[in-house]
Amino acid sequence: MITVNARATFGPEGPFKLTEIERRVLQPHDVLIEIKYAGICHSDIHTARGEWGPVQYPLVPGHEIAGIVAQVGPAVTKHAVGDRVGVGCMVDSCGDCPNCHKGEEQYCLNGMTSTYGAIDKYGQYTQGGYSTHIVVTEDFVVRIPDGIALDAAAPLLCAGITTYSPLRHWGAAPGRRVAVVGLGGLGHMAVKLAHAMGAEVTVLSQSLKKKEDGLKLGADHYYATSDPETFKTLAGSFDLIVNTVSAKLDMSAYLSLLALDGTLVNVGAPAEPLSVNVFSLIGHRRSFAGSMIGGIRETQEMLDFCAEHGIAPEIEVISADRIDEAWERVLASDVRYRFVIDIGTMEA
Amino acid sequence: MITVNARATFGPEGPFKLTEIERRVLQPHDVLIEIKYAGICHSDIHTARGEWGPVQYPLVPGHEIAGIVAQVGPAVTKHAVGDRVGVGCMVDSCGDCPNCHKGEEQYCLNGMTSTYGAIDKYGQYTQGGYSTHIVVTEDFVVRIPDGIALDAAAPLLCAGITTYSPLRHWGAAPGRRVAVVGLGGLGHMAVKLAHAMGAEVTVLSQSLKKKEDGLKLGADHYYATSDPETFKTLAGSFDLIVNTVSAKLDMSAYLSLLALDGTLVNVGAPAEPLSVNVFSLIGHRRSFAGSMIGGIRETQEMLDFCAEHGIAPEIEVISADRIDEAWERVLASDVRYRFVIDIGTMEA
Repeated sequence: MITVNARATFGPEGPFKLTEIERRVLQPHDVLIEIKYAGICHSDIHTARGEWGPVQYPLVPGHEIAGIVAQVGPAVTKHAVGDRVGVGCMVDSCGDCPNCHKGEEQYCLNGMTSTYGAIDKYGQYTQGGYSTHIVVTEDFVVRIPDGIALDAAAPLLCAGITTYSPLRHWGAAPGRRVAVVGLGGLGHMAVKLAHAMGAEVTVLSQSLKKKEDGLKLGADHYYATSDPETFKTLAGSFDLIVNTVSAKLDMSAYLSLLALDGTLVNVGAPAEPLSVNVFSLIGHRRSFAGSMIGGIRETQEMLDFCAEHGIAPEIEVISADRIDEAWERVLASDVRYRFVIDIGTMEA
Repeated sequence: MITVNARATFGPEGPFKLTEIERRVLQPHDVLIEIKYAGICHSDIHTARGEWGPVQYPLVPGHEIAGIVAQVGPAVTKHAVGDRVGVGCMVDSCGDCPNCHKGEEQYCLNGMTSTYGAIDKYGQYTQGGYSTHIVVTEDFVVRIPDGIALDAAAPLLCAGITTYSPLRHWGAAPGRRVAVVGLGGLGHMAVKLAHAMGAEVTVLSQSLKKKEDGLKLGADHYYATSDPETFKTLAGSFDLIVNTVSAKLDMSAYLSLLALDGTLVNVGAPAEPLSVNVFSLIGHRRSFAGSMIGGIRETQEMLDFCAEHGIAPEIEVISADRIDEAWERVLASDVRYRFVIDIGTMEA
């Protein structure tokens, strides 16, 4: 095994402590990555606090990983030492099921392997990117184009692909009206991406506090959902709504904003079930859907799209000893728009 | 006004009584239809009992209407006296909004006019097909092909189009796995239609009581939803589930039966909201959708499809004095599979 440094949480309350974890010895198709940056995703917090199921501690979260290839196994053909690479929310899948064959490994019928908090095919508990190194099979490692800085690249591996995939799947394009609910880490990427795809973009945020930001990021319109007038004004207005909020919302009110054949897609996952009035679906043949990250091929496509369109997340880089504080600020929605840990500070 | 006979309910409890109602004098584009048969739809009961909102009594339900053209206004070009025709759930729409222009009049942005229980553009309260005659503008009257008997044609105008439209919209076809939840008036039509479209059809019914029927109607498989094993066996199996049950079901359990990119479409509308676990949507990019009848062009297409494929509903024809009894049997699911009132017995 390879012993590496990491920041782990030892229980649902934290705090993070510097520790050592084991990475497997490189198998023929494995890539050893020296992690340079790791994004902080709200899912890290949900998972670490046991809100999405039981957790084994110590846990090293982090599934927005950007770094440099440090070593490759003898059979690796896709990556070479020195390459700029990324790893997202999954590090393996069966490769054999119909969904894997379609390139939708995130929906692997045998269950994809999450980057942290899962048991991999070696029987080892996976640990994420709040760490100096990670070993990943080459098929689950993507290239980071030269045009994107490594720190800004990290959040694309989750926040980027999580919003890119449904925007593509449900056809964000010129002439299409797209709304983004919530202007956080995912939401601000959804705005940038939908705008770059040519859609007319509306932000639906609790208040107008971030309106100036939203318009700068590429939104055409900005409305406060705390104002009941918003739901009257915008009734039947959108072809697609991307809901990035994982709190429990009044779904029927949001569904009423869809036009004929419109889709509201949840990329956030509230722990509690949501209540849906079926009349709000039937009335205009609307759909309420869910989408989870994206496949590896599509993740690469997203990175290339971002490089081509000069898109990168707005980030605040922090040192590794400030993770607990950053998590508190994420929970308070006090981040514009993504924290990224500078892994070079890990040993501090 | 034209005075005609009808069977009306005078309150939420019934009973039906023979009465007279007024139909408007024919306008230039109007068609006077001598009604021969009217189907009994579960919606008639929901509406008449005030379960879907306040009702003005007396109410004459019925939106599955088959008859013969008795008279036409001077500007009518689509229908002639003696034609076999049908009228479904709507008798008018604005004709001017984007949805009407698309031929999706059922989703008219200004509100289509329901066949009964609505105020039409003349300010008159609409009354339905449990009646000897009806006056309808020619655009909302469809042709019944010669190959379909008038009594069997009636239920196609609601049960037929309500299931045909989502099957077409979500692509029931060879190689596609379609499940139908509930084997009642709508469900048995969904089975026949999906089978004729070439899909592999599974019925999901509470029990196996109607299994023999279901297989005869065209189902390839039949499962009881009261058996928890059903949900294990069929997990991830379907591309499309058409839910015809308007009671409150465990939606997350049914959603788990969908494959990647599958859609569960509700054509029934429970009065209470349904609870949806978002993880069951996100897990395989599933959609929960709703669909309401179909447009006029599609209703004609459905009738032509049924004639071409020799499809007709299974019906039990009753005399007009047995409506109350038939309603009780609908509520007890004691009908195989649709009651049709012989309007020739109206005055009895």
